[in-house]
Amino acid sequence: MKVKQITFAARPSGLPDVSVFRFDEVELPPLQEGDVHLKGLYYSVDPYMRGRMNDVKSYSPPFRLEQPMEGGVVAEVVESKDSRFRPGDTVLGPYLPWAQEFVIGGDKFQKIDTSLAPPSYFLGILGMPGLTAYFGLLDIGKPKAGETLVVSGAAGAVGLVVGQLGKQLGCRVVGIAGTDDKIRMLKEEYGFDEAVNYHTPDLAAEIGKACPDGIDIYFDNVGGKVTDAVFKHLNFFARIPLCGQISSYNATSEPVGPRIQPVMLTLSILMQGFIVRNYGARFAEGIQYLAPLVKSGKLKFTETVVEGFEKLPDALLGLFAGKNTGKMIVKA
Amino acid sequence: MKVKQITFAARPSGLPDVSVFRFDEVELPPLQEGDVHLKGLYYSVDPYMRGRMNDVKSYSPPFRLEQPMEGGVVAEVVESKDSRFRPGDTVLGPYLPWAQEFVIGGDKFQKIDTSLAPPSYFLGILGMPGLTAYFGLLDIGKPKAGETLVVSGAAGAVGLVVGQLGKQLGCRVVGIAGTDDKIRMLKEEYGFDEAVNYHTPDLAAEIGKACPDGIDIYFDNVGGKVTDAVFKHLNFFARIPLCGQISSYNATSEPVGPRIQPVMLTLSILMQGFIVRNYGARFAEGIQYLAPLVKSGKLKFTETVVEGFEKLPDALLGLFAGKNTGKMIVKA
Repeated sequence: MKVKQITFAARPSGLPDVSVFRFDEVELPPLQEGDVHLKGLYYSVDPYMRGRMNDVKSYSPPFRLEQPMEGGVVAEVVESKDSRFRPGDTVLGPYLPWAQEFVIGGDKFQKIDTSLAPPSYFLGILGMPGLTAYFGLLDIGKPKAGETLVVSGAAGAVGLVVGQLGKQLGCRVVGIAGTDDKIRMLKEEYGFDEAVNYHTPDLAAEIGKACPDGIDIYFDNVGGKVTDAVFKHLNFFARIPLCGQISSYNATSEPVGPRIQPVMLTLSILMQGFIVRNYGARFAEGIQYLAPLVKSGKLKFTETVVEGFEKLPDALLGLFAGKNTGKMIVKA
Repeated sequence: MKVKQITFAARPSGLPDVSVFRFDEVELPPLQEGDVHLKGLYYSVDPYMRGRMNDVKSYSPPFRLEQPMEGGVVAEVVESKDSRFRPGDTVLGPYLPWAQEFVIGGDKFQKIDTSLAPPSYFLGILGMPGLTAYFGLLDIGKPKAGETLVVSGAAGAVGLVVGQLGKQLGCRVVGIAGTDDKIRMLKEEYGFDEAVNYHTPDLAAEIGKACPDGIDIYFDNVGGKVTDAVFKHLNFFARIPLCGQISSYNATSEPVGPRIQPVMLTLSILMQGFIVRNYGARFAEGIQYLAPLVKSGKLKFTETVVEGFEKLPDALLGLFAGKNTGKMIVKA
C-alpha cells in the first residue's frame, strides 16, 4: 500500500518556502511484533518547528534531511501488533511522521481520552500549547491577584490560554497581537482587559496606556520590538516566562537590540527560558487543571483548521505570517 | 565644629569626573534626643553608585543634588543620645553621608561585632559584596559539584568571593578580569581553575578553552561584550545571577547588542537580576556562613585601601577604570 509522505528536503536560510518540503509516495512496510499501523487524523504545525530546520544545538534535535517531517499527530489505529492498542483507538504522539498512514512502534504514542475533549484538542488546549501556557504562567510567572499580565502572541495557541488563566487568577490581562480582528476577539470573546495591535505607530505608549500600574508578568511568545516596548513598563520584581521568539526564528543574522540586562538588574527582574518538555513529569497535573475548565466552558479555545494533508507545508509557513488564530492544525 | 563634607553637585552624563562632587565645610548641629554623633572610619565606594547619579527609577533612589553623597560607612560613636550606643562603639550604616563627622538618628546604622573581623571587612566580605556573592551564587546560581562556574569582574569585591565559594562547593571556577596581574592573582592566590583576560583578541575562543564542558552558571558583574562571549558556551539549564553591568553604567545611549532571548529560550536558561537588599531578611544567615570561613582563612579577601577622606571622589571614579582589586575602600 502506497501513501503520501512529506519529506524534509532542504535546510532553509531565513523564511522557509515550500521548496523545503517534498511530497513522496512511500510503501508501508509489513508490521513487526510491537508495531502499529496508524492513520493520521490531525497534524499539528508549531512555530518551534522552524528551529528544528536548522542544524544547531537546541531543545529538539534538528529535522533530518531526506527523512519525513515530524510533529504532534492525532491518529487512529488501523492495525496493531502491540497488545495495548486495538483498531479504532485514538492516539497521540509528539513526534510522528508527516505521512497519511505509517507503521511505527507502540512506544512512540499514547491513547487519549476522547471523552474529555474532541481529539484535536489534544494538540492544543490539552496538549503542548495548553500545557505550555499552564506551566509557564503558573510556575514561572507566579501570578497574584491584582497584578498586570501582558502576553505577546496573545491570539496564538499558547497566548489565548495564558490570558484566560491570568483572568481566572485575578490579573489585569493585556494581550498584544497583530490584527484588529484579533484585538477585538481578545477583548470581546476572551475577556482580556485590553489588547494592543503591535502595528500601532507608538507601541510603547499604547502598552503604557493599557497598563497604568506597570507590568508584573510578561509572558513572551514573540520577542523583538514588541519586547522592547514592553520593557519600558516593567515593574520591580517582574517575571518573564520566555516561551517563544517567533520574531527571530527566520532571522538570517544574529538579532540585535537594546541590551536588557541593565533594566533586569535595576528592577530585579527574572527571565526563564523554558519548553513544555521540562515539565514532562507533571503533564497529568496540567491536564487535570485544564480539562474541567475546558469542559465547563470557562476556558475557551480557538482552532484554525486547514483541511487536507497536502496543505501541511502551507499551514506551517502560514504561522510565520500570523495566519492562525489560536491553534493551527491540519485535518487529513 | 566644622567638618568636611562631599556634596553631590551635578548629575553626570557618561563617565563622571570630579566636577560631580564639591567639598563643603559644614557645621555639626547639636544632638537631639535619639541622635548620635559619628566619626567616619571607612567609606565604601561601589559601582552601583553610578546608577544613583542618574535621575531614573532604580532599586536605590537617586542621589539628591546639593545633598551629601552617601553610601556604606563604618564609623565610631563620638557622642550618643540614643541609649543603644555608647562612645567608642563601632557601627555600620548602608546610607551614611560622605562627611568626616556627622549627626544622625540611631535608626540609620547598627553596631558591628569587631571580634569577627576587622571593621573594614563589614564593608566587604561580611558586608554588601560578600552577602551579594553568597545570595546570588547560592540562591540563584544553585551550584552543584562538578558544574562550571564563570564569574566576570572576578577580581572585584564580589567576584573574588563568588569564585572561592564556587570552589568550596566543588565547581570548576573560571574568572574573567582585565589585567594579567589580576589573572595571575586569581589562579595563584585565589585558587581559580582558570582565568581569562577580557582584552584577549578572541575572548569567546579563550572562554571556550577554559570551559571544555560548557558553562552552567554565569555570575555576571559586567555585561557587554564579556557576556556576549560567555553566551557562546552556555549549557542547557544554565543559571545567570545578574549582579552588575559595570560595562554600561557610564553609557550615554541605550546599550545595544545581540539579543539574548533566542539562546535563553533554546537552552532553557534562567536569568535573575538581584540586589543584596532583596535578601535583607536573611543577612544573619549569610554572615553566619561567611564569618567562620574568613576567620579560618578558607575565604581570602583583598582590599584596596585609599587613605584620606578627600580621596573619596577619585576612589569612586577609579572603579570605572578597574583600579581596584577586591573591595575598594577609603580610610579617613
